[in-house]
Amino acid sequence: MSELRSIEWDGRCAVIINQAKLPGLFERVRLCGLNEFEDAIKSMKVRGAPLIGITAAYGVVAHIKSSAVQSFDDLKMEVERAVEVLRRTRPTAVNLFKALERIKNSLEEGLTVEENIRKLEKIAIEIDREEEEMCRLMGQNGAEVIKKADARVMTICNTGFLATSGIGTALGVIYTANEMGMIKEVYALETRPVLQGARLTMWELTQKGIPSYLITDNAAAIVMERIGIDYIFVGADRIAINGDTANKIGTFMLAIIARRFGVPFYVVAPSSTIDPNCPDGQHIPIEMRDKEEVLNVFGCQIAPRDANALNYAFDVTPSELITGIITERGVFKPHEIKKAISD
Amino acid sequence: MSELRSIEWDGRCAVIINQAKLPGLFERVRLCGLNEFEDAIKSMKVRGAPLIGITAAYGVVAHIKSSAVQSFDDLKMEVERAVEVLRRTRPTAVNLFKALERIKNSLEEGLTVEENIRKLEKIAIEIDREEEEMCRLMGQNGAEVIKKADARVMTICNTGFLATSGIGTALGVIYTANEMGMIKEVYALETRPVLQGARLTMWELTQKGIPSYLITDNAAAIVMERIGIDYIFVGADRIAINGDTANKIGTFMLAIIARRFGVPFYVVAPSSTIDPNCPDGQHIPIEMRDKEEVLNVFGCQIAPRDANALNYAFDVTPSELITGIITERGVFKPHEIKKAISD
Repeated sequence: MSELRSIEWDGRCAVIINQAKLPGLFERVRLCGLNEFEDAIKSMKVRGAPLIGITAAYGVVAHIKSSAVQSFDDLKMEVERAVEVLRRTRPTAVNLFKALERIKNSLEEGLTVEENIRKLEKIAIEIDREEEEMCRLMGQNGAEVIKKADARVMTICNTGFLATSGIGTALGVIYTANEMGMIKEVYALETRPVLQGARLTMWELTQKGIPSYLITDNAAAIVMERIGIDYIFVGADRIAINGDTANKIGTFMLAIIARRFGVPFYVVAPSSTIDPNCPDGQHIPIEMRDKEEVLNVFGCQIAPRDANALNYAFDVTPSELITGIITERGVFKPHEIKKAISD
Repeated sequence: MSELRSIEWDGRCAVIINQAKLPGLFERVRLCGLNEFEDAIKSMKVRGAPLIGITAAYGVVAHIKSSAVQSFDDLKMEVERAVEVLRRTRPTAVNLFKALERIKNSLEEGLTVEENIRKLEKIAIEIDREEEEMCRLMGQNGAEVIKKADARVMTICNTGFLATSGIGTALGVIYTANEMGMIKEVYALETRPVLQGARLTMWELTQKGIPSYLITDNAAAIVMERIGIDYIFVGADRIAINGDTANKIGTFMLAIIARRFGVPFYVVAPSSTIDPNCPDGQHIPIEMRDKEEVLNVFGCQIAPRDANALNYAFDVTPSELITGIITERGVFKPHEIKKAISD
């Protein structure tokens, strides 16, 4: 198994990198039971919108493979039960719901139980491979927006190979541009509270030997002012049909600052991240996570024990602050993002 | 000694609260030797622009009291040596340089060594008491800008009684307004990397029983958007004569976001924070601290061991983003801040 593949399906279980332990420990974990998949997504052992979708798809397949179902009705019930459990793990990223929907809708009454299971497994593997291919295409499309050699780029959260089954979304663009010799330095926001930027993006960038600097989230403005940033690339958890984009907490802040300094601000996401049923950002549910994630860092209490905290896991960047949305189908103006899902 | 006084002079040494250990441990530390004062400021056992100035003034006095100087020339040499050592502890806050300058300039050749030492001690105590009184006045002046009962206010870093010898600057305004029944909730930014907001401001607010929420720095935009913030109060480490204000890293970010949401953004600082020799923000030296402060939180490594990081300790908010500067002498438009230091 490649060091750089975030998930692998062995025919019965999924093997993942435990991202909650990085960068201190590189540990692979085998997910077999439904509750193991559920916990891995909830506790962010796997995270990243595309990878959550892929993991959930494998979760349903692992569950029905280990269930001794005999009839189509039993199979359907078990698929629906697994879909229900996995649907409730995280509310914001749309990839999760789309992957589960696709798996569920692939059941065919005319097929035997055996054939249905094989079919669903094939679909899960397809989702995985498609996401990988989409990363490659996003990388190519995104690298083309970089018009300046020796670009200094900035990003938030982790959107690389740990967040997908391919090279990544926003970070995948940076990798592709780097291979073309376009990248001077990457500035990664640490991304409190879960520190995906510090823990995961900096880990990926140092693995790949790309010159990079970690900064605290609140340093984005001074870095744009004093060092100068040429492009910002961020991922997405859900894109509304008007181009409003939900992504990791801090993305909205970054877009507001980018506008002040005139820095081009690109969202990079597969077209599966677009939610055709969502008219605008106000309709995207924003996950509130446990306040303990804010009050503690790696088990160290950073505030008084009885302190209150708010823990928005995502925010919504209005489409007017987004320069372009880079998908596997091309680069779109945010208000034209509908085109990316019309045939 | 009051629980709520950040520094106390006992005639020979200064007793401080070790702010590096809060909120996990409330520990008082006695500073006597020059190197103890130097270390306490450098390592941020004491921090906050006004308190740094007061501590440094006591540091010079403690040093000359423990030196067995016999002549005016020896005394002058020791004062100058202590001033030099303490001047090099932190570069950004102007209060440090002003306090040291005032102590040094108080030496009088006509007085005996004994008389000079008594005089310098009196000046140091005066600086301490003046800062305390200025906090009280800033609190009164600042509370008057709050025109709305049940205000939700936001702040960054720590600017309360731990940062001063009185009730504080920005947080002192919030305390005064709270006593007048004007404050509904305080939203404190955690303020990475040193987490003064999480560790110190939340500790002060819970001590005082004021309803408060800790948020990550990157959540400021969504909180302004979804909860609604009525006023923002921040401190200052140095104010240029055109109103540009250096303050804790993240203040500039916060001001940019505040402008987008139309939230009044006030700087609160004693007039001693104004540097008449500094024409604008580009002339304020910005301290770069050790990258390890970014790469670690409470001794936990959050990024790969060989990662690079940038650690700007401060940023500069341009005066056009500041609604008003609240001083002990009144509230000034930032471009009129000169008035606060003219008699």
